[in-house]
This record gives sequence, C-alpha cells and structure tokens, in this order.
Amino acid sequence: MNAPTVAQIPPGIVNLEDHARHAHTVLDANAWAYFSGGAGDEITLRANRSAWDTRQLYPRVLQPLAGGHTRITLLGRALAHPILLAPVAFQRMAHPDGELASAYAAAALGAGMVLSTNSSIAIEKIAATALNESARGPFWFQLYLQDNRAHTLALVQRAELAGCDALVLTVDGPTDGARDRQRRAGFRLPSGVSAVHLADFRPMPAEPLHPGQSALFDGLLAHAPTWDDVAWLQTQTRLPVLLKGILHPADARQAAALGLAGIIVSNHGGRTLDTAPATAAVLPRIKDAVGDLPVLVDGGIRRGTDVLKAVALGASAVLIGRPYVYGLANAGAVGVAHVLRLLRDELEIAMALCGCQTLDQASPALLFEG
Amino acid sequence: MNAPTVAQIPPGIVNLEDHARHAHTVLDANAWAYFSGGAGDEITLRANRSAWDTRQLYPRVLQPLAGGHTRITLLGRALAHPILLAPVAFQRMAHPDGELASAYAAAALGAGMVLSTNSSIAIEKIAATALNESARGPFWFQLYLQDNRAHTLALVQRAELAGCDALVLTVDGPTDGARDRQRRAGFRLPSGVSAVHLADFRPMPAEPLHPGQSALFDGLLAHAPTWDDVAWLQTQTRLPVLLKGILHPADARQAAALGLAGIIVSNHGGRTLDTAPATAAVLPRIKDAVGDLPVLVDGGIRRGTDVLKAVALGASAVLIGRPYVYGLANAGAVGVAHVLRLLRDELEIAMALCGCQTLDQASPALLFEG
Amino acid sequence: MNAPTVAQIPPGIVNLEDHARHAHTVLDANAWAYFSGGAGDEITLRANRSAWDTRQLYPRVLQPLAGGHTRITLLGRALAHPILLAPVAFQRMAHPDGELASAYAAAALGAGMVLSTNSSIAIEKIAATALNESARGPFWFQLYLQDNRAHTLALVQRAELAGCDALVLTVDGPTDGARDRQRRAGFRLPSGVSAVHLADFRPMPAEPLHPGQSALFDGLLAHAPTWDDVAWLQTQTRLPVLLKGILHPADARQAAALGLAGIIVSNHGGRTLDTAPATAAVLPRIKDAVGDLPVLVDGGIRRGTDVLKAVALGASAVLIGRPYVYGLANAGAVGVAHVLRLLRDELEIAMALCGCQTLDQASPALLFEG
Amino acid sequence: MNAPTVAQIPPGIVNLEDHARHAHTVLDANAWAYFSGGAGDEITLRANRSAWDTRQLYPRVLQPLAGGHTRITLLGRALAHPILLAPVAFQRMAHPDGELASAYAAAALGAGMVLSTNSSIAIEKIAATALNESARGPFWFQLYLQDNRAHTLALVQRAELAGCDALVLTVDGPTDGARDRQRRAGFRLPSGVSAVHLADFRPMPAEPLHPGQSALFDGLLAHAPTWDDVAWLQTQTRLPVLLKGILHPADARQAAALGLAGIIVSNHGGRTLDTAPATAAVLPRIKDAVGDLPVLVDGGIRRGTDVLKAVALGASAVLIGRPYVYGLANAGAVGVAHVLRLLRDELEIAMALCGCQTLDQASPALLFEG
Repeated sequence: MNAPTVAQIPPGIVNLEDHARHAHTVLDANAWAYFSGGAGDEITLRANRSAWDTRQLYPRVLQPLAGGHTRITLLGRALAHPILLAPVAFQRMAHPDGELASAYAAAALGAGMVLSTNSSIAIEKIAATALNESARGPFWFQLYLQDNRAHTLALVQRAELAGCDALVLTVDGPTDGARDRQRRAGFRLPSGVSAVHLADFRPMPAEPLHPGQSALFDGLLAHAPTWDDVAWLQTQTRLPVLLKGILHPADARQAAALGLAGIIVSNHGGRTLDTAPATAAVLPRIKDAVGDLPVLVDGGIRRGTDVLKAVALGASAVLIGRPYVYGLANAGAVGVAHVLRLLRDELEIAMALCGCQTLDQASPALLFEG
Repeated sequence: MNAPTVAQIPPGIVNLEDHARHAHTVLDANAWAYFSGGAGDEITLRANRSAWDTRQLYPRVLQPLAGGHTRITLLGRALAHPILLAPVAFQRMAHPDGELASAYAAAALGAGMVLSTNSSIAIEKIAATALNESARGPFWFQLYLQDNRAHTLALVQRAELAGCDALVLTVDGPTDGARDRQRRAGFRLPSGVSAVHLADFRPMPAEPLHPGQSALFDGLLAHAPTWDDVAWLQTQTRLPVLLKGILHPADARQAAALGLAGIIVSNHGGRTLDTAPATAAVLPRIKDAVGDLPVLVDGGIRRGTDVLKAVALGASAVLIGRPYVYGLANAGAVGVAHVLRLLRDELEIAMALCGCQTLDQASPALLFEG
Repeated sequence: MNAPTVAQIPPGIVNLEDHARHAHTVLDANAWAYFSGGAGDEITLRANRSAWDTRQLYPRVLQPLAGGHTRITLLGRALAHPILLAPVAFQRMAHPDGELASAYAAAALGAGMVLSTNSSIAIEKIAATALNESARGPFWFQLYLQDNRAHTLALVQRAELAGCDALVLTVDGPTDGARDRQRRAGFRLPSGVSAVHLADFRPMPAEPLHPGQSALFDGLLAHAPTWDDVAWLQTQTRLPVLLKGILHPADARQAAALGLAGIIVSNHGGRTLDTAPATAAVLPRIKDAVGDLPVLVDGGIRRGTDVLKAVALGASAVLIGRPYVYGLANAGAVGVAHVLRLLRDELEIAMALCGCQTLDQASPALLFEG
Repeated sequence: MNAPTVAQIPPGIVNLEDHARHAHTVLDANAWAYFSGGAGDEITLRANRSAWDTRQLYPRVLQPLAGGHTRITLLGRALAHPILLAPVAFQRMAHPDGELASAYAAAALGAGMVLSTNSSIAIEKIAATALNESARGPFWFQLYLQDNRAHTLALVQRAELAGCDALVLTVDGPTDGARDRQRRAGFRLPSGVSAVHLADFRPMPAEPLHPGQSALFDGLLAHAPTWDDVAWLQTQTRLPVLLKGILHPADARQAAALGLAGIIVSNHGGRTLDTAPATAAVLPRIKDAVGDLPVLVDGGIRRGTDVLKAVALGASAVLIGRPYVYGLANAGAVGVAHVLRLLRDELEIAMALCGCQTLDQASPALLFEG
C-alpha cells in the first residue's frame, strides 16, 4: 500500500470530544450531517453518551499496579487492548484516504477494525494494510444481507479471500431510521464516493404494489432478513459470525442458541430507532442472558472511563465509530491513531485509579450505585 | 365540494416539529397564541411531549416483517392506520380552507377525523368531503353539551343527518382552563371566523348572582354536565358515543359501566388543567380499568414512535391536534396530508425496527423499563 | 381611613408571575433585592416553587359542580376562601400606601391578613381598614419575641387592643439567614421606612464577649426564644396563638401538645436556611403529626392549582407573600386585590376541573402519583 | 516571619462563590486552568457541589441555643471549628505570599492547615507562622510517597522537625487524572514557582520499556505505592498518619485495620478519576465502615450548610481547597481569612436554624429524606 498522508494533530485537541468539535469545522455540512446525525430527535444518540456519564466508578487505592496491562483475548486472539473501530460507511467523505487510513492507524495501534459493507474503498486494498502489522487487532467484515443471496455470497467470498477474521452481520437495519438531520440537510453522496463493493449488483426489480399496500412492509421489507437467513449464512462461511445490533435479551439468547460467535450490543449509534435504550443500559441484561458468549458494545464510548465501565458491565471489547471518523477528518491516519492513543491512555489511567491491574478484575462491583 | 387550494410543502420540513416551527412563521401572533398555547405555565403541555420521549422502545431483530401493515379495526370499521385528526376549533384561522382542507386530507390518507362543535365551516359541507373517499377513516362529531338541551339535540341531529359515524362528547371542559398565553396575547376571533354551528343559539339568560356567590360555581357551572347528562344523551342518539377528556380510572370505569362506545384519554392538549398528568402516564391505568373498551389517546403525539408506544400501552388509536393545524397553516390540505404521511411512515419504520408485523403484536413488553 | 390610591393594572398581567416580572421593572434594585431575594444560593426559594409545579392533579369529570364554593372555616370563622396575606415587613418600600393598601385589598376580597411586627405602618391605622369590611377575613398580628419581655407584652397588647383575631408567632428566625443577594446589593432601609412598632424599644446592652466566644451563639442567640417562651406567651394573651415556621413533625407535635391554635408550615419563603425542604414536601408529614390541629402553609404558592394541592395535602389555608407585594408595587391596593382575584379565580377553575364542589372534597387522592 | 501583604476584600463578595468569580478575573488563564480545572469532563467536580446542594437540612425551632459553639476535638486536640485548609500545590501561582499567607490566615482563624508536598514555600518558613498562634488549628504535612524511600524519609523528617502534628498521606494519585482543561490550556509552572521540597531529589532512572509494554503500567506505575508502603511509613514516623483519597469502604476498613489515625474522604477535588462518586455520597458508607475512626471530607464544600451536612453524615471535620486559594488570589492572607470567616459564620447560622447548640448534636436525622 501507499502510506497515507501524514498530517499534524491540530493544537488544543486533548480528548475525543475535542476531535468532534474540530471535525465540525473541517467537514462540509453534508458530511457533518451524515456522520454526526442520528434518528428522529436524537434522543438515543444523546442517551448513549449520558448513560456512560452517569454511571460512576468506585476508585480503589494502594492496590498492586506494577506490570498491569490492557490485554484481552477475543475469539481466541490476544489483543493489546479492547478497542475496535466500528464499521462506518463512506469514509472517503471524511478524508481522501478513507478506510485505508483508518485501517493503517488501527493496525499500528493494535486496534481491531470492522470494515463496512458500504466501504468507499475496496476490501482487498484495505486488507493489505490491515493485516500487515504483526501486533494488529482483528480485521472483520461487516455484512448487510443483500436481497439477492448470490450477492451476499459474493461479499462473503471477497471477505474470506481478503483474509478477514470474522463476519459481523448487522441485523438492526431492515430499514433506515428516520434520519431527520440528514434529510433536512438534503444529504447526497459526493461524486467519487460510493459503496464500491456493491457497484456490480443490480437491485432486484420491485414487484408493483397493489392499492393499500405499504411501500415499506410490502416493498422494502418483503425480503427483510430473519433468523433463517442467519442460519443459512452460517452454513455458507467458514468464518465466525457475530451479530451486530442486538438490544433485547431474547434476541441475544437466540443468537447464542444458534451458535454465533459473539454479539455486538448496538443501537447503530442512535441512527435507527430513536428512543431505543442506551447501550450501556441494556449491556448487563444481554450479558446475563448469554453467559460466556463474547459481548461487545458500541454507542457513545468517548472516554477511557467508558471503556472500563463497559468491560465492568460484561463487555469483552468496545467499538468506537464517530470519534475515529472525526480523527480521520482532522488528520487522516494520524488523527485516527491519535484518537485510539488518547482512548487507550485514558483507559490505563482509569484502571490505575480503580486499582485494576488487568481488565479481568473489572466487574460490576467497580460501579458505585448511588 | 371544491377541491381545496393546492400548495407546496416548504423545503426543509421532514417531521412534525418542522411543521410547527414553520407554522410559527406563517400564523399571526393571535392565531399562534390560540393554537399553540396551553393552560397556566404549560407544564402539562410540555409533560405530554416528554412523557412520550422518555418512554423507551425495545428493538427486536430478524423477526418476519414481509406483508406487515398498520391496519386496525375501530368500532367495527377497518382502518388503514390508527391516526385520527382530533377536534380543533376555528381552523379557518389557520388557513382559508379550514376544516374542509383537513377533512379532504384525512379522507385521502385514510385517517379518521373528529369535527369540532366549534368548527368554522358547517358540518354539512365537510361531510360531503369527509365521506367521499372509499378508503376514508371514521368521521366523528365532537360535541359540547349545551346549556339548553334543545340546542344539544339540534347539534346531534345535524351530525346524524350529515352522516357522522359517532359522537365524541368532550367532558373535560366545564370551564376553560387559565389559558394565560392566549389571554396575554389578547386573543380575539378574527372577523369572518366563528363557530358556525352555534350561530343560531341564544345563550340562556344568566340568573343574577347574590353577593358572595361565585361567577363560576353559581354562574357558568350551574349547568355543568354530569353523568346524568351523558346517560340522557345516549337515549337521544343512535350513534355510538365516546367520551373525550378522561384521565382518572374511576371515570373510565363509570364510562364503561354506562355502555359508552369508547374513551379518549386526553388533557385537552394541556389547555385545561395545568399540572394534570401526561396522557402517556395515565393511559395504562385507564386501559387496565376498562378492559376491552376501546381507548384512544391524544396529547403530544409527534412521532411514529409515539404512536407505537401508545398502541403498546393499550390505545386502539391516537389523535393529533396541533400538528395537523400547523400542516394546514403551512400548505392547506397538502400540509395536513403531509403531516399524516410523515407520521404513518414513521410508524411503519418504528414497527419494523421493533419487529412488529402488525399492531396486534404491540404490547407493554415493547417498552424498555430502565 | 383614607382610601388608598387607585391605580390601573398594567396591561399583559394575567397571573402572579406576570406581577413579579412587572414589579421587577417598578421596584428599585434595593427593594427588589429585599423582597425577591432568599438565603444562600436560593435553592429552597426555587424548591418551594418546583415542589408545587411537580405535584400533579388528577382531574375528574362530570361531577356535580353547581353551587360549589371555596368557603372554609378557620379558627371558628367562616371565610370566603382559603387565601391569606403572609406577614411581609416594610411594605412602604414597595408602595407609599404600604400595609394599608394590602389590608384594604384583603378586606375587600375577603382574604385574611397577617400584619408583620416589622410593619412600616402602625397596626392601629391598619386595623381600622382591615376590620372595616363585614366579609373580611381574619386579621392576625405576626409577632417576633423581643429580647425584653416587656417589649413583647407591649406588642401583644397593641395587637389585642387593635382588634386582632390571633397572634402568629414566628419561630424560624433566631437569626437571619445568609441573605446573600440582599447583602450583595448593600441593602438599606430607605429613609422614611422603618419598623414603627419597634421605634420606642431600646435594645438591651450586649454583654461583652470573651475571646473565643461566638458573636452569634454567645451574643445574638443568648436570648433566642425556646418552647418555654411560647408557653409563657400563651399565659399573657387571650388571643389564639399560631406558630409560623414549623417544618419538622417533632416540632409540630410539640406545638400541638402545648395547645397552640395552629401551625404555619413555612421556610420563611426560602429566606432563612437554604437547602431546607420545600414546604409542599413537608406539609403531609406535619398534617400526619398533628391530626386536627389547623395547619396552614406558605412558600411558592403562585397558582390556584397550588392552593388546591395544598388543601389536598392537609392545609386549612395558604398564605402568599411576595406575590401580593409585587401587586402592591405595581398598582397599590388595586394590585393586591388583582393578585387575590387571580388566585381565587384560578382556584375555582382548578376545583371545577378536578370535580371538587367544595374544598372538603380535596384529599391526597386528588394528587396523581406518577 | 514577615507579616503578609495586607489587602482589602473586593466589594460585593459575600460568599465563597463570589470569591471564585472574582478570582477568575484576577488569575491568569494558566493559573485559573490549574486551580479550577478537574479531570475529564469535570462530572465529578460538578457532582461534588451538587451532592451537597441536593441534600436537605431539616430545620428545628425553639431549641436552646445560648452558649452554643462550633468546637470539636480532633486527634485529641480541641479546635474552635471543624474547617481545615486542604493541601493545594504551588500557591505562589495564586499570590506572591503563597502558602505563607494561607498559614497566617489559618492560624489567625483557628483553622487547621495541611501543607502540600508540592508547596511553593518551604515548610520551615511556614511552620514558624502556622505554629505561632495559641488558638491555631492543627498543622499537618501532606505526603506523596516518593519512588525512592530515602526521599520519602527526608520529607517525613523535615515535617517532624518543623513541628507538624500529623502526616496526611495522599493515596488517590498513583497517576495524574486526565486534566483536560489544564492540558488544553498548555499549563506550565510559571518561572519562580516550584515544588521546593523536591528540588534536591533526582528522579530514579526509568527502566527502558520493551515493545508492547505500557508507559503507564510498566513505567510510571512500576513503583506505585501499595498498602505495604503505608505499613512501612507507619514504622518510620512518630506522627499520626491519615490517609487522604479514600472513597471505597473496603479501603477504609483496611485503613482502620492498619491502625491509621484517620481518613480523609476525597476524590481530589474531581481532579483524578472523572465520574467517581461525590464525596457526600460515599461519606456515610465510609463512616459506617470504620466506626470511631476520625473521618474528614473534602470536595465541593462551599457553604456553612455543607459543613453541617458533612458533620451530620459522620465527618469530624472538613477541608476546603479551591475556595481559599481564590481568597488568596483576591486578597492574600486577608482573603483566606475572609473565606474562613464567611464559612464559619454560615456554619453558626446553619446550626442555629437547625436547633444545634453543638456539633455533637448533628446526626443523620438532621437530613430530610424527600
């Protein structure tokens, strides 16, 4: 690969919210609406944040800390820390280097990366970068089931051939949420940015609707994925499959019963169903429901303390989305790396101040119940 | 009828609150104060909204969705969706086409309409429009009991002759609330707008008050309706009668005991008793109290998620008031239709993201208790 | 007496908060700081208001309302309504007519009045007005126990001779609160305004403090009143004595045990101990503690709904302070009368909308527990 | 010693927040960021304040108050009141007189003082002032354990020789918190201000890190103090040792088991772990855990009511930090004395209004549970 552009972190950026504020000045209104917006009144978007903020950590003192570390094991792989990059579409809207820069930074910082189906750069180019580093984290491919199973299989095969370690099947998007901010901004993909993996797929011709039929239920949702499609997918790939977008314990139990490799608790960053609960609020119930099955979580993670709380509440690892895209907008790969560095440093500080030598020691007892 | 004026939806309006914001720029201060204002400090007005916002929906994934729909049955009639237009007085203050435009849009979108006693256009003109469409929703007449029973009967007979499907007896207004915003604005009906149904009624001469008597209790309320009047009304009409303005379970049980056709849980859009509870908060208690009796609800419904929550909490259908008047102000019949369209589309999205194929599947389990 | 100045209510004033806003433009900074300010950070001042706002009334419909009324009986006297004017010092700072105007308005509107020890007009002048009207409410004298019992007795005798119906002994002020707003404004009594009842009293010479002694505990509080002083006062007057400033049930029980005539639940309008609880919060506990003993309440009453809530929670009557002083500032006696009129009208509306014909029907069941 | 500069209190300052607001105009941005800032998003910084604000005091009336006082006994020493100056580093950034002025004011007002390891003036100079006054409070030295035990012993010996009454070992800072405000401001110690006690210590050479090792866990924390170091310290000094920075009851019990002299409940003024609980929230649990062991508390104390609440919840005494530094910035020693005076006066008022003659009478029953 070509090394991505090297840029400087703008002065005054010392945390992830600083990156967001600066990105707001860098991105155009179209891209800002797309990346920052949520569904409806953005109640869930805000709830994701405030749910971490309002959970309180119970500090401990004078515990042995020397030689502590942030290492975890995830799907059998040792990772330097529990932070992954969530799948985010169309990253070339944020920076010309797009997903390539994100992958470069992830590999350098030992962070896992989940590449979106709607990547604006082809998986083969990215894999070369993502898999290049010996201390890299996992490289997973995020999959939307396509209406046409042949298309789905084509995507799965590209992911397998490119060397992906797992598939992340997103299941919370049978339809887009009401992304009002984006719609009000009249969002359009800029020229030169597209979902390159889908370029060759022809949409199936829609059956005409009868009077009284719903464009959604009788049209778009006519082929919405179900649990049967998940079972089918499992038969079509040798890769472990994780489900992303689970919030209800009953769905988590179903995933466990089907033998999936893991669950990502997510409300799609507040972009689908507004007034869905914050991920921090449902995480412990999901963990209770599935026992040893690995549970990851995203949504509103902005601080090392958030990461530690997530692990204490049962998460094996966390994913960040918008923050690294803002880092990407601000300084390309260097910006993404900076975001990962800041978050990991904060995590270590939080562990030290809570008397945790390792993340194994993080349990619900770490949280103060006021 | 003459088709109402055709107008364009102003750009940038993608939800009901956008309609409200735009209407604020379209309506004069007098009309805005009348339509938007509530009682007292508008605590209940705001509580109606926040009660829906703070209830959380529990998403489900991978459920079968194909062929789902929003259809319901209400008072024996199949409806395309559970959204009705609440009775709102004096709609010609919002737009020259007034109630006629609202009825036109309701019929076109399959929404029920409840025409106010204080309509600014005569019921006979509106009925022609409201009943015209084969896929129309119910057309109901909202009734205030008049001091003079002959007047009440005259209204009932006009409603019956015009073809109304039911009567909606509003019982929460023995006196107006303290509508401070409206009073501070010095509200007056503009010339050319009046309650045309009441034009021929002469008020009964008030008995002079003795010293120490209250203008309210000894004057205005001397003939305030009681349960006996409800029972009398039932003997005077062949139409089903629903009571609107019930918040207390004891009153709901009394309505059920009298054999009424349904209940509309309402605090009059926060326009009567300030600090009355939000309708979302009392709805489940009312439903518990009356079992199978149809319960509808209004108050603060602005989102498809609100509609789904209402149905999950026991409502057979919902009514919207201010939002469609704002649509009317913004673009006449087209504006009202746009409001109905937006709300129904959002409802479908919310159902899909909660794994509900039909509204029958919506139960209190759909709500996340945090 | 000379009838007080006749003034007009400024336009746009339709409730008590409107009076407050307008008074802010009428009063000078010195007087505004004195009347509007509270202790410390004014947490209790705001809590008094929000405690009424957040309590919710449960509306009832179709109850018999004709011939209802707001009448109560208090200390054996029939009153037209349960609203009294609380003792407020130095009312000539608000308007040249001072306490005389307030008394005039109270008598005209059938409201009780409690005259402050620190009145800026002599009780004898005011009594002539206050007792003049046949439909007047009670006329009570608020008493601070003086360091010198002879002074206390002199005040009691003036009150008795002037025809007062009762004494209200304020017990929550052994020392002033930390009235920061007032102190920051450098408050001083304007020339021509003084506590006329205390003009002839010479303060007792303070004993010099030893090093390490506290100016408060060893000085000002050396003669702070105790329960013994209350018992002594009861032996010195034929008038019923109420205690004002009780918030703790134990103190209320003690008052009942001593045979006092009533209790006024009060935190001095948030002017003494900041972060003391709101009066609405303690009222039910006080009522529980004392059974049939009359309990009155002040603090944050601004709405007819607040009055109804207070009665529902056990109050026999309520007192307002700042609101009528603002009415006084805005329009003299007419302003005070307007405030009383607005509040009583709102009370009647609230009763009607809650299905209460009389205040006897108001019980805790009137409050919705969310 | 030389008497510190005499200055005037700026007009309009009547409480501790006024001092803060004024100091913001006096301090340069660098010093303001250092003294006022907290960790992360400053959630704990704000929570410390709001936790005191939201606890409510239950006033009592007519209790005997004459001869009351604020005296306490702490570690066997009689004190005029329970207010101490917390250790704050680098006070010469706030005022040229620095820690000397603070010590002068503390001694004059009978307040205890805890001198920081990171004092910008040498302990020997300060001790002369701090120990000069017969009615002085305790003079304690705050200690950070140094990587090199010889350095720690050197500090202990200076403290003992200077006449300190106790050592306060701060245990909540194995690493600095993420002080984002300070970092964003690019904080640097101004020339001429330094930690004079540490001037002669050479840092131990850091061992080089292997790849994959953490600069924090494998570097800075390699010598982080543990309970063993506390036990060692106890064998090295004849002074009583208190632990500062305890929030968890398990740590408090451990401190009690080791025979420490007391505990200071503290979250370092919100400067270490953001989203740690407010000190007011954990104080009762700590007190429950350790029984008779003296417990002190800091964090957000700004009002006499806060002091009384702290004592009611089990604190033997309280410490203030930022407020006295602001007083120092505003008016040197006079400003510190003013802060202490204001707080003690407010404490006496609060006691009087709660019917407390002495602090012994303050118990959890003093708090209203709403």
